[in-house]
Amino acid sequence: MLNQSNLDAVFHALTDPGRRRMLEQLSRGPATVSELAAPLPMSLSAVVQHLQVLEASGLVRSEKVGRVRTCRIEAQALSLAEQWINQRRTTWERRLDRLGEYLSRKR
Amino acid sequence: MLNQSNLDAVFHALTDPGRRRMLEQLSRGPATVSELAAPLPMSLSAVVQHLQVLEASGLVRSEKVGRVRTCRIEAQALSLAEQWINQRRTTWERRLDRLGEYLSRKR
Repeated sequence: MLNQSNLDAVFHALTDPGRRRMLEQLSRGPATVSELAAPLPMSLSAVVQHLQVLEASGLVRSEKVGRVRTCRIEAQALSLAEQWINQRRTTWERRLDRLGEYLSRKR
Repeated sequence: MLNQSNLDAVFHALTDPGRRRMLEQLSRGPATVSELAAPLPMSLSAVVQHLQVLEASGLVRSEKVGRVRTCRIEAQALSLAEQWINQRRTTWERRLDRLGEYLSRKR
């Protein structure tokens, strides 16, 4: 069962192109906050705020060792959103298939 | 090539549980605005506002014949969002697979 409030937070996290770029980088492997910030045209404090949104959604978790915070992606939260969309799309496509079969029988 | 501003709008449209319920209903087939509103605990004007967000995102299109507006889902916009998530998840999972192979060779 997909949790609705999780989905709210996951889709909200995905609305921002900066946060999506952070997730793209993290999909290639864990990164420190500085590594995440380096390619982005925004301040370190903006990156930290975006990270808080990503962590609240469950898409990212981070761990601080000494003075370095390392972030990694949580594939399960990505799957949750992917499944929701996939279920809607396949329901719609099955409906179109049935409609196509019905119409071809009517010919 | 996935259009970033389309993705912003699609993910924004998906953040709201009411809009997701409307998409669930539309995945089972086209519906009029009244049919979409019937199961939802909100006013007709709220439903119309949510529909505007869904249409702006490209997830839904509607057509008015006489006094009745009929809405249908646009599977292509759903695919856009699904592909974006799927690419991130598979990049991450391939990385985990490579890491697993590397670790098993080291044993």
